[in-house]
Amino acid sequence: MNAAAGGASGLDAMMRARSVAVIGASSDAVKIGGKPVALMKEHFQGSIVPINPNRPEILGLKAAKSISELDDVPDLAVVAVGAKLAEGAIEECLQAGVRSIVLFSAGFGEIDEAGREAQERISATCRAAGARLLGPNSLGLINFHTGLYATFSAALDNVWPRKGTVGIASQSGAVGTYIMALAAEAGIGFSHFIATGNEADVDVADCIEWLAGDADTKVIVAYMEGCRDGERLKRALEAARRARKPVIAIKPGASEQGLAAVKSHTGSLAGSKQVFDAVLAAYGAWSAHTIEEAVDIALAASTGKLPSGEDAIIITPSGGVGIMMADACAEANIALPPLDATAAEEIRALLPLASTGNPVDTTAQVSNDIRLYGQVIDIVATRADVPILFIFMAHMGKTPSVTDVLKPMLREVAKNHPDRVMAIVTRAAADFRTEMTDAGFIVFEDPNRAVTAVSALTHFARHFARPARREDAGPATDQATLANAAADPASGAALLATLGIPDLPSRLAETADAAVASAGEVGWPVVLKIASPDIQHKTEVGGVILSIRDEPALRDAWARMMADVRRHAPDARISGATIAPMLTGGIETIVGSQNDPDFGPVVMFGLGGTMAEALKDVVFAPAPVDTEQAYEMIGAIRGSALFDGWRGAPPADREALAQAIVAVSRFAAANRDTVESLEVNPFVALPKGGTSLDMLFQLRNPG
Amino acid sequence: MNAAAGGASGLDAMMRARSVAVIGASSDAVKIGGKPVALMKEHFQGSIVPINPNRPEILGLKAAKSISELDDVPDLAVVAVGAKLAEGAIEECLQAGVRSIVLFSAGFGEIDEAGREAQERISATCRAAGARLLGPNSLGLINFHTGLYATFSAALDNVWPRKGTVGIASQSGAVGTYIMALAAEAGIGFSHFIATGNEADVDVADCIEWLAGDADTKVIVAYMEGCRDGERLKRALEAARRARKPVIAIKPGASEQGLAAVKSHTGSLAGSKQVFDAVLAAYGAWSAHTIEEAVDIALAASTGKLPSGEDAIIITPSGGVGIMMADACAEANIALPPLDATAAEEIRALLPLASTGNPVDTTAQVSNDIRLYGQVIDIVATRADVPILFIFMAHMGKTPSVTDVLKPMLREVAKNHPDRVMAIVTRAAADFRTEMTDAGFIVFEDPNRAVTAVSALTHFARHFARPARREDAGPATDQATLANAAADPASGAALLATLGIPDLPSRLAETADAAVASAGEVGWPVVLKIASPDIQHKTEVGGVILSIRDEPALRDAWARMMADVRRHAPDARISGATIAPMLTGGIETIVGSQNDPDFGPVVMFGLGGTMAEALKDVVFAPAPVDTEQAYEMIGAIRGSALFDGWRGAPPADREALAQAIVAVSRFAAANRDTVESLEVNPFVALPKGGTSLDMLFQLRNPG
Repeated sequence: MNAAAGGASGLDAMMRARSVAVIGASSDAVKIGGKPVALMKEHFQGSIVPINPNRPEILGLKAAKSISELDDVPDLAVVAVGAKLAEGAIEECLQAGVRSIVLFSAGFGEIDEAGREAQERISATCRAAGARLLGPNSLGLINFHTGLYATFSAALDNVWPRKGTVGIASQSGAVGTYIMALAAEAGIGFSHFIATGNEADVDVADCIEWLAGDADTKVIVAYMEGCRDGERLKRALEAARRARKPVIAIKPGASEQGLAAVKSHTGSLAGSKQVFDAVLAAYGAWSAHTIEEAVDIALAASTGKLPSGEDAIIITPSGGVGIMMADACAEANIALPPLDATAAEEIRALLPLASTGNPVDTTAQVSNDIRLYGQVIDIVATRADVPILFIFMAHMGKTPSVTDVLKPMLREVAKNHPDRVMAIVTRAAADFRTEMTDAGFIVFEDPNRAVTAVSALTHFARHFARPARREDAGPATDQATLANAAADPASGAALLATLGIPDLPSRLAETADAAVASAGEVGWPVVLKIASPDIQHKTEVGGVILSIRDEPALRDAWARMMADVRRHAPDARISGATIAPMLTGGIETIVGSQNDPDFGPVVMFGLGGTMAEALKDVVFAPAPVDTEQAYEMIGAIRGSALFDGWRGAPPADREALAQAIVAVSRFAAANRDTVESLEVNPFVALPKGGTSLDMLFQLRNPG
Repeated sequence: MNAAAGGASGLDAMMRARSVAVIGASSDAVKIGGKPVALMKEHFQGSIVPINPNRPEILGLKAAKSISELDDVPDLAVVAVGAKLAEGAIEECLQAGVRSIVLFSAGFGEIDEAGREAQERISATCRAAGARLLGPNSLGLINFHTGLYATFSAALDNVWPRKGTVGIASQSGAVGTYIMALAAEAGIGFSHFIATGNEADVDVADCIEWLAGDADTKVIVAYMEGCRDGERLKRALEAARRARKPVIAIKPGASEQGLAAVKSHTGSLAGSKQVFDAVLAAYGAWSAHTIEEAVDIALAASTGKLPSGEDAIIITPSGGVGIMMADACAEANIALPPLDATAAEEIRALLPLASTGNPVDTTAQVSNDIRLYGQVIDIVATRADVPILFIFMAHMGKTPSVTDVLKPMLREVAKNHPDRVMAIVTRAAADFRTEMTDAGFIVFEDPNRAVTAVSALTHFARHFARPARREDAGPATDQATLANAAADPASGAALLATLGIPDLPSRLAETADAAVASAGEVGWPVVLKIASPDIQHKTEVGGVILSIRDEPALRDAWARMMADVRRHAPDARISGATIAPMLTGGIETIVGSQNDPDFGPVVMFGLGGTMAEALKDVVFAPAPVDTEQAYEMIGAIRGSALFDGWRGAPPADREALAQAIVAVSRFAAANRDTVESLEVNPFVALPKGGTSLDMLFQLRNPG
């Protein structure tokens, strides 16, 4: 793979090809050389030439013996020959001037070392010629808007996806077509389908970047098992974010079992799923855990609407479903504010027994006169100042006498509130689903799936509203300073201090008077510790006294300590004692960074201490982060409530914590070439400020 | 509600009624008095009499003016009159000798205080007459096997559920029919549908118990917003477990928002969702979070097969989907053991490029000759000794040319392996889905949903294999001992000790010699603490010395402490010093109990310490628990790995921990009438044994 040739450059000719040659074209429409010819003959708006040395005609189209015979160089060559013939075929294409190639053939890098070498040769040849290559082992690509079916997918035999705005880019052709087929059956329309296969050149990141710039595409669904160039993927995600195009990504391999399966499938080790998800989230993409979830969110995003906030009202004729949806909203961080008072009054005027909280529960009363339900929906949509409505309609969507009444009413509501995200949950007849989808509603059968899909829309909206990520990491630290920091705790602490991360202030005092003065500087209460190069275990010689609250106690402690230590260690050299503030309260955290093999520097934040570490309550983000992102990380851990003042403790200083996260993240980004990891552990978040108690620098090339 | 009248007793006549009168029968089949008549006229195997004082005939059936006119007392009366007339109608029914009543009418307890009182009167009247009452505000009941459609549900207008083995009991008619309709569309057949509404008498627990004993029912789906009698629900769940009938329950109200919605809907406060789920789990039921999940599991359970273990093999033509399913299995605790070597050899003989790990990845090669895929499935089913197979079939299920080949092969596999749980994941045409389901396969479209459903089956199998829960709690503690334990830590510690939960052994020594002897008894290293009724802050007078490792150090520490204390507190009475073992390592946990308002005594276990508490890493179980259940609780917390020896620490003594959990649970159960809660916090799990460091007893009627 060549980073220079990567990205979306040169992909227009491939994705929007107006002329296609199929090398290895077959008259059997079931075969991989026949299917694309058959499909494009029927649907392609451009020109198609089958290439076959032995047949003058393929499926009714005039065939050429060789690509070199053609008068006009086609925009795209589809290579559908056996692996052994592929190299020669590609050579010919390049010599003929073709600059886009889709290589169906399997039997390359996914098979063995010889295959990997052949694949390398092919990609090098293409690169040298300035051509782009999709594959090998690719199921091909489809441009639904031009009818470019450069694919041999059998999925098209039993589902015919309609033209639309969702683009799919999938490493796996099988996963990609499975998503496409289920999405098509859910009513989704498509712009492009691209299966990248072995990714000798074009990878999923390239496709995302290209789709981000494609006018036909509004929503991007991606499946990827790994990522060979994290920076390229970040760039692609950022391009999509700026274009306000939701990216829904599936990245399997969250478990040991899954990773073992990845390894067995692609022969490669997948990076950390947690870091991958953190990168997706940081760039506004949504990490979907299942195919169904990806399809649901694509469906919701297809309306083209994103909510302007995260407040919703639930309207339901069933209290029970209202409760279930309220639970689902809580889990998805969608708030249910009280219903507007005027709306409540108007609803009660129609339905005296309705519960006008949120959920608005009309009760089954509405089944007597279904117009009332439409009116309630209209009242809420008109009066309530929330960006999201959930409308449960039970079996109504399958009852023609009901939908006949509600369809025009709902269409009117949609017309009057074009920006509002409105999800209808009902068992829906096909016509009702289609008409309501066309009117701008999101239609689901399962209440929880509707909430999850809408919550993904709030995620996109939040991220699209943000300015671009700031990537200014500041200057790198010089090598000598890093080497010292890695070798010696005091130098490490000094380096952290220059980053704005203080350690515990402490003072060496040679006399009791000096100790009292120092205590005033570091703040009461204090800890007194003997200072001696000869004493290892200070506690055992009476060399540690905690919780000293005032001057008399300190003078007393000083005298006692000096006497005890002299008695227990008469030969030790005593240089005095250190005075440090007594840490009371405070919450131990870990603030760290590491260089991810896929994505470079990432910053990590979590609770500290053995237990918290075992509970794995940590979050990641690509470094550097800004203050807002650091606050989000603090809020994202499970134990976040601790910082609000747990069990009567004072709240922790979130600002100081955020600053430490920002500082570590910027340091990690600035020194990505030299620093492997940094762990400030624990960083104690105090009611005011925070302090490092220990840290570990690991350099990439130590020594 | 009358606990004495509750349970399943007397419900046979209602659920299997052979003769029905409909009071308030209407000629309009859309109305609540007309629909049951119309439905039963068509489908009921028994006799039906409409009751209407004004019409001699209803929907072609001869009507009676009053129920008192009838020659034979009907098994069941359906009351479909307005709320105001309902009391009178029920009086008449009872006088006529009817002993089963379904009350459709709304406008009772769900509305206001007057309604609640009327409801109470009705239930009292029925109880006095020895009659069972379903409702008020009930959507009614259906017996699909006899055609008893004692319901006015509109859901039946657009879906006609077939006869089968799944029984639904739902507090909410709307949620119940929504589940039923979606399940029917998924191909599920039903035995009964029961909507309990306001539950003036019959509640969901009663229905579960009755369905547990009903020969037509093999699977039970329940929806309940609360539980008015926890013991009754436990009894019902245990009856279902012993009958080996999976119970799939939805209990909403997991969030504040959800609980507020419950309150607004039913006017009642719902109990803790966490305790509710713990009870469900302890009795082998499955707590489903969504309607879809409940339907999926009911579908899977409908095959009547439960896996004999938790090992699976995944067969897939797509590496990508294999990875996703491997992840899903890991999350669901389904292990993927290596494929049997003979099977691997046989598969490679057919498909040289297949990956014969687990997942078994045939690659898309099989699309050339689909018989090969059937052969691989057969090989795995025959050779591999696992109870579960997952078979991904991509688009195959929608491709007639493929299903024609595979159907007979799969039927043969199912026939040869009748006990094996086999899930097919494919986009399925209706005929393929039906035929494969009838053959014994579970058929899903979404890979993750298939894994979740099968994992629920493993849960049922595990619980069905167990002996009945032991409920022997041992003798109750006398009141005086409890009062002392609540008032005084030493008495509390003594009580815990009698339960088998030791606190830290400590000895009072009056001399250094005695201290040395005590240290030998409690075990080195030790902590020395001054013993004086006059010294509050021991540390500040030099009255605490930690980590004393041997005799010379102890003698030295004794001398030093006595000198320091006498100097700092010359007037204090010194009775000596206590010697206790120095706790090093060990993991702080909480072992506690509380009296749940719904379910009585529950035992709680979790990690201790402030952070762990904030992370809410706790699990509950109904008390008492046995050792096996206690081990499961230890394994169920997120931080469970800590007990295995985290970061080089020695493993904790799980047996001692389990014993403490069992002891607290038995104490809580034995003293449910007198003890509100007990919290041993922390209980420190040590490498050998464990110790209570503090505890709190709260009595139900303190003083």
